[in-house]
Amino acid sequence: MFELLNQKGKARRGRLTTAHGIIETPVFMPIATKGAVKTLSSSDMEKLGAQIILNNTYHLLLRPGFEGLKKLGGMHKLMNWQKPILTDSGGYQVFSLSKMNKTTEEGVKFQSHIDGSYLFLTPESSMEMQKVIGSDIAMQFDDVAAGTSMRERYEDAMERSLRWALRSKTHHDMIAPEQMLFGIVQGGTHEDLRTRSAESLIEIEFDGYAIGGLSVGEPREDMYRITRHVCDLLPEDRPRYFMGGGMPEEIVENVRAGVDMFDCVLPSRNARHGTLFIWNQDPSTIDYMNVDATNPIWYKQLRITNEVNLYDESPIDPHCDCETCKTTSRAYLRHLFSVQEILALRLASIHNLRFYLRLMEELRKSIE
Amino acid sequence: MFELLNQKGKARRGRLTTAHGIIETPVFMPIATKGAVKTLSSSDMEKLGAQIILNNTYHLLLRPGFEGLKKLGGMHKLMNWQKPILTDSGGYQVFSLSKMNKTTEEGVKFQSHIDGSYLFLTPESSMEMQKVIGSDIAMQFDDVAAGTSMRERYEDAMERSLRWALRSKTHHDMIAPEQMLFGIVQGGTHEDLRTRSAESLIEIEFDGYAIGGLSVGEPREDMYRITRHVCDLLPEDRPRYFMGGGMPEEIVENVRAGVDMFDCVLPSRNARHGTLFIWNQDPSTIDYMNVDATNPIWYKQLRITNEVNLYDESPIDPHCDCETCKTTSRAYLRHLFSVQEILALRLASIHNLRFYLRLMEELRKSIE
Repeated sequence: MFELLNQKGKARRGRLTTAHGIIETPVFMPIATKGAVKTLSSSDMEKLGAQIILNNTYHLLLRPGFEGLKKLGGMHKLMNWQKPILTDSGGYQVFSLSKMNKTTEEGVKFQSHIDGSYLFLTPESSMEMQKVIGSDIAMQFDDVAAGTSMRERYEDAMERSLRWALRSKTHHDMIAPEQMLFGIVQGGTHEDLRTRSAESLIEIEFDGYAIGGLSVGEPREDMYRITRHVCDLLPEDRPRYFMGGGMPEEIVENVRAGVDMFDCVLPSRNARHGTLFIWNQDPSTIDYMNVDATNPIWYKQLRITNEVNLYDESPIDPHCDCETCKTTSRAYLRHLFSVQEILALRLASIHNLRFYLRLMEELRKSIE
Repeated sequence: MFELLNQKGKARRGRLTTAHGIIETPVFMPIATKGAVKTLSSSDMEKLGAQIILNNTYHLLLRPGFEGLKKLGGMHKLMNWQKPILTDSGGYQVFSLSKMNKTTEEGVKFQSHIDGSYLFLTPESSMEMQKVIGSDIAMQFDDVAAGTSMRERYEDAMERSLRWALRSKTHHDMIAPEQMLFGIVQGGTHEDLRTRSAESLIEIEFDGYAIGGLSVGEPREDMYRITRHVCDLLPEDRPRYFMGGGMPEEIVENVRAGVDMFDCVLPSRNARHGTLFIWNQDPSTIDYMNVDATNPIWYKQLRITNEVNLYDESPIDPHCDCETCKTTSRAYLRHLFSVQEILALRLASIHNLRFYLRLMEELRKSIE
């Protein structure tokens, strides 16, 4: 159940009730691809203030696998994580990670990037796997067009995704009625394709709607334009999820367009590469509803390995309340990166994830 | 200052007062080679119950280097670690890690294993570096014979180590009187060489005495024999440190011979390779003063990656009080190792270090 609490312009302050508890939106979902947010434990995620995490169906299908995870009793139990989980459908990763993949109307045949074995994923088997994972929110299986495709390919992929949406929904309602299912709006940067996709999905009726196929290299203005276009089509009483993006100012802009949910590898991936997000001012003093969406001056990125941090005794970010900022100087974190200590990856991940989670807290306050 | 509180046979319950606080002995010192116990933070070490950690002079000499660490204000400040630190002298690592090393009476010239640059370490420069690190306990610079050497080489190395002990002590007393300095008894498995080494060091007078050059591949009975032999020669009122060993039963046996301090990479290295120490019974019910020192039945080693753990929902070790055992099933840790998540290394390290630190707590109780 999604409750719309408040609106400011098109920005929405909402509350999503799932089988594993309530999610205050707008929300950021850290990505626990293979059963852990890289370097961090479930209790770390709880301390950071994560309300929901994302598991990747493709990775879990490879290991522990369908039968394995069934015996293990699902990811909540395996990870000892009590809060909500969202799963993607596996479609995007099959397309981007597997060695070979062949799409037919039935589904996608692909080769594992781990051991080369052949697997077959369909709307129905994706629903089965997401049920076994035990996520609170499942995603429809979709056909993903590469970010550089011609219009025809976008149209084909969108139309097939609609047929797969119906198959996903039909099978899902039969096997996992307690789980929410989201449809995914596709259609690249073509507004008419997006309209056709959104309207058809709304007709099928899902518990929520995602915007897929953006943040894949298109110009930022196109991404903003399509997000606004799609949000204006979607029903008010269902949550909206922007898949896989992006930079903090993009999240702010998409919240202002009416998006409720986000996931992104950026904070943790950048952290592992030594790039840290730093507030330029107290985050509670920023006017998020009016800041520039293209050229943010309210935060910066710190390359911790730079020479300038060598003797810097100050915390990573004086405005941050995370464990890393409370205990670690820039000089120490730089040293840990320079001698390649694993601890560096963890301390940086904690900080960057806290930055994103804090951003969402401030955005929620800002809408209220 | 070392206070002998209690004795049971030759086993000693003591209290060592340092510039950064009191250490209850017997004690195990986790190794923070390059400024972190691998995968763990200073606050993690505190939560685990570590009383003192060890820094490696050789690694810190390479990075951040002498001048760098001087500007940084030493390792307590850099690591944000308030408790005692012990440093080795760098001698052993120069010998075991550097690409090339050439020993003369003056010292050891060696090539960095990082960038191939040439460095020169002498008893005097080792003392300077340990002062800059700011350790509470420094070690004399010594000449290390390979574990398979002929008697003549052991004798030469031991005699040179004695001359270097005197140079270490002379320089140390001049530059760092607030820091404790330990001498290192050498001489391989030859009792007469060990006697000569111990008696000469006692004559110089150190704040404590270490037993070096053991646990390097010699038969276990030789190691026990030499430890007993050396402990019987050492003064009662100074702490005794067994360098770099070993398995839990070896620590128990060496405590029974009269050793007070231990360090070893085993718990954390084994952890990173997926081998976990598991209590076979409640650790507070073990009669440590009488258990078999060669064939321990009070603990076992668990290969977490084994198939048998695939669906095992039980904690790593039901007798353990660590964070990992409180939150993580064998099945989950096995999964994390199998998908190569960094979190696996951390969770395993936490458990194994807690096993060693708990063992020392129980040994202290047992002597009391």
